[in-house]
Amino acid sequence: MDNIFSARIERIRQLMLDEGWDIVVLTGGDPHASEYPADRWKQVPWASGFTGEAGDLVVTASHAGLWTDSRYFIQAQRQLEGSGVELHTTRVPAAVPIPEWIASLGMDSPVIAVDGLCFCVEALRNLQKAVPDARIETVPDLLSPIWDSRPSIPSTPIITLGEDLVGQTREKKIHSLRKWLAINQYDAIFISALDEIAWLLNVRGSDIDYNPFVISYLLVSLDSVKWFVLKEDAEADDESQASFDELRADGVEVLPYDEVEYSLASLKKDGVDRICLDPSTLNTFMRESVDDGDILPEVFETQSPVPQWKAVKNEVEIEGMREAHLEDGLAMERFLYWLENNVPEVSEWDAACELGRLRSEIEGYRGDSFETISAYGPGAALPHYVTPRSSSPLLQRKGLYLVDSGGQYLFGTTDITRTVPLGPVTALEREDYTLVLKGHIDLAMAVFPRGTAGCQIDALAREPLWKTRRNFGHGTGHGVGFFLGVHEGPQDIRQNFNSQPLLPGMICSDEPGIYREGMHGVRHENLVLVKELGDNEFGSWLGFETLTLCHFDTSCLEIELLTQDEVEWLNAYNERVYRTLSPRLSSAQAAWLREKTRPIR
Amino acid sequence: MDNIFSARIERIRQLMLDEGWDIVVLTGGDPHASEYPADRWKQVPWASGFTGEAGDLVVTASHAGLWTDSRYFIQAQRQLEGSGVELHTTRVPAAVPIPEWIASLGMDSPVIAVDGLCFCVEALRNLQKAVPDARIETVPDLLSPIWDSRPSIPSTPIITLGEDLVGQTREKKIHSLRKWLAINQYDAIFISALDEIAWLLNVRGSDIDYNPFVISYLLVSLDSVKWFVLKEDAEADDESQASFDELRADGVEVLPYDEVEYSLASLKKDGVDRICLDPSTLNTFMRESVDDGDILPEVFETQSPVPQWKAVKNEVEIEGMREAHLEDGLAMERFLYWLENNVPEVSEWDAACELGRLRSEIEGYRGDSFETISAYGPGAALPHYVTPRSSSPLLQRKGLYLVDSGGQYLFGTTDITRTVPLGPVTALEREDYTLVLKGHIDLAMAVFPRGTAGCQIDALAREPLWKTRRNFGHGTGHGVGFFLGVHEGPQDIRQNFNSQPLLPGMICSDEPGIYREGMHGVRHENLVLVKELGDNEFGSWLGFETLTLCHFDTSCLEIELLTQDEVEWLNAYNERVYRTLSPRLSSAQAAWLREKTRPIR
Repeated sequence: MDNIFSARIERIRQLMLDEGWDIVVLTGGDPHASEYPADRWKQVPWASGFTGEAGDLVVTASHAGLWTDSRYFIQAQRQLEGSGVELHTTRVPAAVPIPEWIASLGMDSPVIAVDGLCFCVEALRNLQKAVPDARIETVPDLLSPIWDSRPSIPSTPIITLGEDLVGQTREKKIHSLRKWLAINQYDAIFISALDEIAWLLNVRGSDIDYNPFVISYLLVSLDSVKWFVLKEDAEADDESQASFDELRADGVEVLPYDEVEYSLASLKKDGVDRICLDPSTLNTFMRESVDDGDILPEVFETQSPVPQWKAVKNEVEIEGMREAHLEDGLAMERFLYWLENNVPEVSEWDAACELGRLRSEIEGYRGDSFETISAYGPGAALPHYVTPRSSSPLLQRKGLYLVDSGGQYLFGTTDITRTVPLGPVTALEREDYTLVLKGHIDLAMAVFPRGTAGCQIDALAREPLWKTRRNFGHGTGHGVGFFLGVHEGPQDIRQNFNSQPLLPGMICSDEPGIYREGMHGVRHENLVLVKELGDNEFGSWLGFETLTLCHFDTSCLEIELLTQDEVEWLNAYNERVYRTLSPRLSSAQAAWLREKTRPIR
Repeated sequence: MDNIFSARIERIRQLMLDEGWDIVVLTGGDPHASEYPADRWKQVPWASGFTGEAGDLVVTASHAGLWTDSRYFIQAQRQLEGSGVELHTTRVPAAVPIPEWIASLGMDSPVIAVDGLCFCVEALRNLQKAVPDARIETVPDLLSPIWDSRPSIPSTPIITLGEDLVGQTREKKIHSLRKWLAINQYDAIFISALDEIAWLLNVRGSDIDYNPFVISYLLVSLDSVKWFVLKEDAEADDESQASFDELRADGVEVLPYDEVEYSLASLKKDGVDRICLDPSTLNTFMRESVDDGDILPEVFETQSPVPQWKAVKNEVEIEGMREAHLEDGLAMERFLYWLENNVPEVSEWDAACELGRLRSEIEGYRGDSFETISAYGPGAALPHYVTPRSSSPLLQRKGLYLVDSGGQYLFGTTDITRTVPLGPVTALEREDYTLVLKGHIDLAMAVFPRGTAGCQIDALAREPLWKTRRNFGHGTGHGVGFFLGVHEGPQDIRQNFNSQPLLPGMICSDEPGIYREGMHGVRHENLVLVKELGDNEFGSWLGFETLTLCHFDTSCLEIELLTQDEVEWLNAYNERVYRTLSPRLSSAQAAWLREKTRPIR
């Protein structure tokens, strides 16, 4: 038993004995329902060794199990080896989710401990519903007593963004939120979601990799704005100090992060009779804090209006996104030029580094928007491939190379995938490449009436693949924030029913793919902006403007699989890329891009 | 006040005074939640004069209002003139549904009377929810005291269908239902829906126009089948007697229709401890009858499993449907040949009669499956046009004629729409005709993975129209029964979210359209069968087989709007129609069809 993780599981069991817990459930979440948690909240990797993005851990006296989905089965099997932790599968037909699994143990009134900070209200209710006789203890920082050198809560410098960058002052945003509170007869709203807070206050930080968020809570009432953000022992740098001052001048009270629970317990005393909370992002501990006061406010659990406001970009944000895609497109074209001239002497990792370097030269660059997927051949067959830092595969002058990457800029966020033939390709690679591009183009060309949701047009990107009995197991499109998360709701384009209509000003990815295990993978991704196309007797019409600017390689197309409309779209797009980018490229690069963007057929 | 309907509204008000009711709500429904009610239950037409298919009436002391949707606004305005009944709109953004409208009156604990037989359980609950302090009286046959010569409950001859026609005996169907009861731990299920009863018992009648149903209720327990069907004073003919005998021999107790309420009140006494009811089809009076006993069973409200079983056709039903479409296609081609040789000397009504006559010559014909829409020019711009019996417009040698019709046969049900150029057409007619056909073909060619629901592929039929900013306001496809209702669930192909996947063996219509008020209308409709296309590494694949056999006219196509794939589909379809039908046509008709089905491009 010298495996570090099996030792940690044993320490959890010792804690369970000491505390009288029968079961401990650890989730991959943080107190803010973030997509990516900071190191402090990476409880599952700490305890089990599994580092995939989706994983929950259950420990009983006799069993330790990790729940994750098919994307991570292989990785989990490898990483869990020797830990004694067994793999449980999710998102497969025979899957037994954690609440049902615990219920199936048939224990008599078990005591289940969860980290109250990392368990959202909805998840707790699902667990209680599945195991009605369980006593669930919500313990904040449950693992802290046994987690030596646990990382502290991040506190990175913050910046504020002016109206010139984001198009709307925080006063206006807060004013809108107060109007919403007044209409709904609430006195205040409590917000845990970090992207909502960053958007509302026009602040950014870098507390979490790839996400320019500031770990904090926000309480907006009809007459105050309380921002719980200051971390114990953290020293603010000069720029942060200036930012805090600016916020204070705008009426934002800047308070210690850990004062939030006291504020929630004294809402009613502070004049809040009716508080509004979003149970999909609120953690259990905060929910309980509201009920901790001597006199209690009326609590309304409802969806926050902020995600939808945030998703509809204003004119300044749209202009910023266009600018970001121009700069990002230049970096991409320089990268593809470099790639063509340096294969076969580079590895997947080298290529990722070069692309990051080119992006970092852009003024206003604030880091990548997610970890670059740089994948050659069979690696690209894994949609969530993680490029190894050492001994990553060398690129060769044949087959397909896939690169999925993006940047965070002060003026926008990008996300682009290109699949590039590095030399001769097989007939199957050629067909897959063409059909995925066909699906991508069909969605990009879509016109639809106002009120249409993403799930109602998802099939447009898939039908060209379906016709040849091909498919892909991920969504076709996700929402993208403005210098915020590269994944954001409420809209998406996928098979799952989501009634949120696509509204003018929303930005989505368009990224169909095909993955063949052990062989190759193809994905073509641009970001598209929903725009108005005018009204007529039949309705009000919407369509997409493609924001991403980087040519699609035409050398490995099976041209006869494309319709005339698709060919015309492709030629027009590549021509637009050339005309927009070539003036900023070196003459050698521009000449190269001219060749790459020659019209086909 | 000599308007007959205003006089009837006054009689309703007198009844309200006598009974102490503040509000009367009359719906278009019958006791069986049928799509089309028999004359006995046409309460709204009797009281208001409005004959559209969707209409509900509310009468208060000072107001009478009819609620209907945009399809019927013009008709309603005309028919309500002089009745004093005001038009309320539904399915428009500003619509106020009846429950909310009543709530908005702000009456103090109003007494609302509804016909308990014609108000389904779900509707009653919605009403009570919207007006919590209302006392709702559910009165069976509420209008009977004031409705002179009210039609009696229909009692038409019945027939039984053997395994050779329907592929499964009633014993097997009842056995499956009992297995379902046992698995779910129910003792019995009570069924009100007429198509479910007809399917389960393999019986058909003609109690309702166009629907071969027998007005009745069915109670299936683990050891008995009680069919409440015999109407007071009705004499059964010889064939019906033989059918009843056959059913009795199979263990079906044939009981009087009006004994059902007593049986429901004595369920527990009869050994039924746990009864299952479907609140979406059950009427309020029957629901209350269950609660009328001295000792009561446990009641479970749940969806009946029958609609889904019924929707998935077995091999015998599929073969019957193919046969029905062959016979129906012959009638259609003979009709179109006749039409071309008789325009301009025929009216819309003449044409409808000729088509009905041709269908009636088919062996096994049991009537039309709905009222034929025979519409020339502007008439075709109304999707639910009712062809006038007298002075209907004459067809001319120009423009588009639309005919939407279908037949009921012992071996299947058909539903087909053809839009026919009668001579020169305008450029807009040509474009509309082509784009609708493009949408029809794109859906007909669709391939999709198992699990896909209709709303996920509806856009395939619409995108060609959407691209040119055209659309249509009805669903693209509805389920079709086997010698049952021409509209049936649970599947459909439309924008509204419906999670029911399209399963192999289900039959749907594929009928996009374009409607231009005062000008013309285009609709192209075939029925398609969901079929398996095999499995591979990417999933299990489904597609459509077109059942309908009748050529699409190619003379007014704008061919360059079609892709090569679409042209090939159309040529192959027309060729298949010619090869299948021509051997059974006269030589003149066959030669004509040969010309009509010549490949294009």
